[in-house]
Amino acid sequence: MIDLRSDTVTKPDDEMREAAAGAAVGDDVYGEDPTVNELEDRAAEAVGKEAALFVPTGTMGNQVAARVHTDRGQEAVVERESHVYKWELGGFAQHSGLQLRPVDGGSRGVPTGEQVREAYVAEDVHRPGTGLLSLENTHNSKGGVAIDPERIGAAAAAARDLGVPVHLDGARVFNAATALDVSVTEITDHVDSVMFCLSKGLGAPIGSMLAGSEAFVEEARRTRKLFGGGMRQVGVVAGPGLRALENVSDLATDHENARALAEGIADVEGLSVQEPETNIVLADVSGTGLEPDDVLDRLEDRGVRATPFGPGTVRFCTHRDVDREDVERAVEGVSGALA
Amino acid sequence: MIDLRSDTVTKPDDEMREAAAGAAVGDDVYGEDPTVNELEDRAAEAVGKEAALFVPTGTMGNQVAARVHTDRGQEAVVERESHVYKWELGGFAQHSGLQLRPVDGGSRGVPTGEQVREAYVAEDVHRPGTGLLSLENTHNSKGGVAIDPERIGAAAAAARDLGVPVHLDGARVFNAATALDVSVTEITDHVDSVMFCLSKGLGAPIGSMLAGSEAFVEEARRTRKLFGGGMRQVGVVAGPGLRALENVSDLATDHENARALAEGIADVEGLSVQEPETNIVLADVSGTGLEPDDVLDRLEDRGVRATPFGPGTVRFCTHRDVDREDVERAVEGVSGALA
Amino acid sequence: MIDLRSDTVTKPDDEMREAAAGAAVGDDVYGEDPTVNELEDRAAEAVGKEAALFVPTGTMGNQVAARVHTDRGQEAVVERESHVYKWELGGFAQHSGLQLRPVDGGSRGVPTGEQVREAYVAEDVHRPGTGLLSLENTHNSKGGVAIDPERIGAAAAAARDLGVPVHLDGARVFNAATALDVSVTEITDHVDSVMFCLSKGLGAPIGSMLAGSEAFVEEARRTRKLFGGGMRQVGVVAGPGLRALENVSDLATDHENARALAEGIADVEGLSVQEPETNIVLADVSGTGLEPDDVLDRLEDRGVRATPFGPGTVRFCTHRDVDREDVERAVEGVSGALA
Amino acid sequence: MIDLRSDTVTKPDDEMREAAAGAAVGDDVYGEDPTVNELEDRAAEAVGKEAALFVPTGTMGNQVAARVHTDRGQEAVVERESHVYKWELGGFAQHSGLQLRPVDGGSRGVPTGEQVREAYVAEDVHRPGTGLLSLENTHNSKGGVAIDPERIGAAAAAARDLGVPVHLDGARVFNAATALDVSVTEITDHVDSVMFCLSKGLGAPIGSMLAGSEAFVEEARRTRKLFGGGMRQVGVVAGPGLRALENVSDLATDHENARALAEGIADVEGLSVQEPETNIVLADVSGTGLEPDDVLDRLEDRGVRATPFGPGTVRFCTHRDVDREDVERAVEGVSGALA
Repeated sequence: MIDLRSDTVTKPDDEMREAAAGAAVGDDVYGEDPTVNELEDRAAEAVGKEAALFVPTGTMGNQVAARVHTDRGQEAVVERESHVYKWELGGFAQHSGLQLRPVDGGSRGVPTGEQVREAYVAEDVHRPGTGLLSLENTHNSKGGVAIDPERIGAAAAAARDLGVPVHLDGARVFNAATALDVSVTEITDHVDSVMFCLSKGLGAPIGSMLAGSEAFVEEARRTRKLFGGGMRQVGVVAGPGLRALENVSDLATDHENARALAEGIADVEGLSVQEPETNIVLADVSGTGLEPDDVLDRLEDRGVRATPFGPGTVRFCTHRDVDREDVERAVEGVSGALA
Repeated sequence: MIDLRSDTVTKPDDEMREAAAGAAVGDDVYGEDPTVNELEDRAAEAVGKEAALFVPTGTMGNQVAARVHTDRGQEAVVERESHVYKWELGGFAQHSGLQLRPVDGGSRGVPTGEQVREAYVAEDVHRPGTGLLSLENTHNSKGGVAIDPERIGAAAAAARDLGVPVHLDGARVFNAATALDVSVTEITDHVDSVMFCLSKGLGAPIGSMLAGSEAFVEEARRTRKLFGGGMRQVGVVAGPGLRALENVSDLATDHENARALAEGIADVEGLSVQEPETNIVLADVSGTGLEPDDVLDRLEDRGVRATPFGPGTVRFCTHRDVDREDVERAVEGVSGALA
Repeated sequence: MIDLRSDTVTKPDDEMREAAAGAAVGDDVYGEDPTVNELEDRAAEAVGKEAALFVPTGTMGNQVAARVHTDRGQEAVVERESHVYKWELGGFAQHSGLQLRPVDGGSRGVPTGEQVREAYVAEDVHRPGTGLLSLENTHNSKGGVAIDPERIGAAAAAARDLGVPVHLDGARVFNAATALDVSVTEITDHVDSVMFCLSKGLGAPIGSMLAGSEAFVEEARRTRKLFGGGMRQVGVVAGPGLRALENVSDLATDHENARALAEGIADVEGLSVQEPETNIVLADVSGTGLEPDDVLDRLEDRGVRATPFGPGTVRFCTHRDVDREDVERAVEGVSGALA
Repeated sequence: MIDLRSDTVTKPDDEMREAAAGAAVGDDVYGEDPTVNELEDRAAEAVGKEAALFVPTGTMGNQVAARVHTDRGQEAVVERESHVYKWELGGFAQHSGLQLRPVDGGSRGVPTGEQVREAYVAEDVHRPGTGLLSLENTHNSKGGVAIDPERIGAAAAAARDLGVPVHLDGARVFNAATALDVSVTEITDHVDSVMFCLSKGLGAPIGSMLAGSEAFVEEARRTRKLFGGGMRQVGVVAGPGLRALENVSDLATDHENARALAEGIADVEGLSVQEPETNIVLADVSGTGLEPDDVLDRLEDRGVRATPFGPGTVRFCTHRDVDREDVERAVEGVSGALA
């Protein structure tokens, strides 16, 4: 079975398992786990921030960030197809009481500076003030598009001019940097905080990092406790996390595999395949006359797994547990299934 | 000074003042104020619901309705220019933890059935389910447009098919019915709950009504207490409220006055005036080369008051405290101010 | 029927009704209602604060105060029998997310300085910091006891030393000052904000005042809007409110009547009557072998109304709508009912 | 250095590390991690519930349970020294809007049935209804006392009679069962849900389990996602967790060591030592004339670590990383430090 549902399915390899087994550990609530401390230092450095915090999931990282950046009674500007708006159970409203102002970021899922200015609400007697701009890169729902530093910078600059902090849901920000062939800090320099996942393309079993200023991370550490994210001998997952940071250079391979997959299935009758920029391939299957779930059932019979992704669409996601040969077999599987 | 800022500025006339002074009263927390009890019965009947509740403001009526209709952790679909989204301090998120899903209701500010279906989110492991559709009629930000029963019904039917309750912010719903020449129940029959204001065109000094099923109003009564809206000898304001219900037939005059005003200022150089459907006249002043606030200053000097209403726009609102002569003087004032 | 259930049942007298009918009014959302403006000035002066705000109910006043004083994620210290804890639907937690730390204020319902210091929690990584101390005077559940300035001052000073703001639920604070024969400012000088009711012993039909610093009231005005308390021609209730402020000197009569009532029913077999300090008389009826509700039914048959007040207890409350003769008849009624 | 600050400091042993390294894994968000699935089954069975859920921390387990059991606008009854009230950042109010009603559970930290009945509030127009009773066993703040099934049962039965669900913070419930020499299910049978920690005395690096009915756990799984606790290849920590379940039988040794420690330091001048029931030893150090922090500094100099635990008190906690020899050295260290 070739599992292309998500890069979250990557299983730890032997090195990672050894990193888990061999990690020096301590009680992280006391700040004494040397491995997570090292990971937090390394992660902060990687994204060019003063400090970073290990969180069990990207969702917690995003939610903690929103709560730390905002005050009671504010608004947040989000992209209308963003993960924080679509897939986190309404957490910005639930955890932080934020009224959401979604903007349409177009095909790349990023608002322009002009859109940020239009979405901005100045606090007055009738209106909650805007307290946060949340961006996403790569943008999952748009097909893993890699948003260039200029676009991120333009949106962030508009927010900054208005005194609004900017958070980046960078679950796959290293994929973005890889695809754009830029340093990740060229992207993250524009934002006040960034969350990125160790557990997706980088291959760690568990964990994400939330980075920002010292003051931000100190408050985030306390808020993480409120959310139930203050764990103990975190080294057993931070060890694999450190190992995962070394996998950044392998992401390019996932991207090549995604392109190979897209090209391979482009000619399948009834499929309309979006050209991938990173490791995500979106295919519009409506031309097949089949519902996405029926397509997925057929693929499953051919040993290929993908995921439904909204009306008429199926998502394939390459990752370090599928190699070129797997991709070729997947292409055959898709072709056969829809022949 | 001719005050066209809002129909909220209407002052109680002698009859209303007498209704305040002469009202039979009791302690409404005990349910013993005969005047508010009568008002609640009359209001329920007027909008065709089983029961109604007096609330000190329309905002409280809308906010209480949202809380009663929904459960913790849901979403609400709102129109992107609606009062509940723009002018109530983010209350749906603040009071009820709702994630908001604004839709663009176009020039009439009402989503189509298709838009409701698209905005609907089925509850699953990643997503809060949709728990409310909130509509507005007349739609203030769109210029007091009167939305016909068919459109309201189409949006509401889509929601009902999905099991989603529908609330109507009918602050000026009697203006809508008047303009459309329909019974107000032709509109309100489509929704589960409706709030309408006594304190706007109907001329009462204070108060709004929230109507719905018996069960809804019972829970709303308790929630009103949570919000601090459970008052005592409510008769002193319910008396004027009863009187206000008799003013519905006067709204047509306000609408005629609005048309007269719009026609009167239509030819003023630099103004682009929207044809009014009810008692609200929007004028785009950008052709004058002046900012709205500068226009308002000039109007003030000529004895006319209006209100800024977003970029380049000024709103005039007719009401029972301005008559045709006032409107004619207002036309002269505007013409003179912008000559 | 002699209604001793609560001083909230007082009905506006002719003067108040005239004050309602004759009030100069304007739109208070624009700050243009001269009567409420005058009332706010007079109320602020009366309790020695910089500013005051009209609110439709005491509950809204208390809830708005809690929200303005605190930040997200804090605790509030409350007395365990206080109105804000028992009778406001959990509003401090609902509206402001506050964790409550109730303390036992003993027979007078006021914590000592030592209790405040013990209840205080310093913010740290595991603990929400204390953000509010809420006091009550007179204390309703303790039988309307009038808490002297020294006790209020001791609790407030302890809070102030810890950087914690103090709110006073002074629904009946003028009763307290009257009973203690002190200026009300001797009490209110100790606290940062105070709410008092116009609608109880002072006889207004509707309304309470929330007073504090200019900055506090400015923020409270905005928060009142969030709660749905921003009304329009408030003069129709503020006029009676102004009139109510002149009734402070009549409260002594209510207190005398309460003492007369207590003395009159003290010898009724099975009753244990608490000596009243203000206008509230608590009677333990357990010695009668009857449940409070049965006692109340018997009283009702004799033309006397009182209210159940916890296990084995009945509350009588004197007010400006009962005179000495009524009290004497009430004594006869109680005696007859329980003979 | 002998670390007696907490049993949370236990480091995974070689077997656990191997369990981490060798675990079969999958993506738990898809329900495909076989190791966590096995752990959830085993944990449910261990505490006699239909189902169980892995959570990253005990705090998340408690917070998720409170949210699942309750509705918006309710109260929770908690013990006044309980972990959920003191050490979880006010989460019941923050996450679930609950008004807290703390009761004094006496020296054993458990309310009687009578106390539960007194604390219960029936929902009415003024009052939030009681929606949860939360118990704790062993009770940390009371010195790790093991609460017998009868007491738990009495409190729980009172709640159940009132229709109130009962959650048990059983972070150390296996310590309780061990000390009482009962099956853990004799305790957990009385409650609707129970959380217990793998990461304390049982020695796992990370994780706790939340168990209850199938329906409860299904809803808890969704709520865990909202809190950011839905992780991926959970097997790497669930493997050690499975191993930890086999360590229950070792807890008796920790208890013996705690008794040895308590006896060893009982005669130290100025110490008043509470007789331990499980693995926690509380020592009142006020007789030494030193502040707890000064005592801890002196202990640290002698190679012993403990933790401050409220005014005048120091807590020692035995666990699987300290053996009898360590305890003897700790006794010497304490004696020397305070000589």
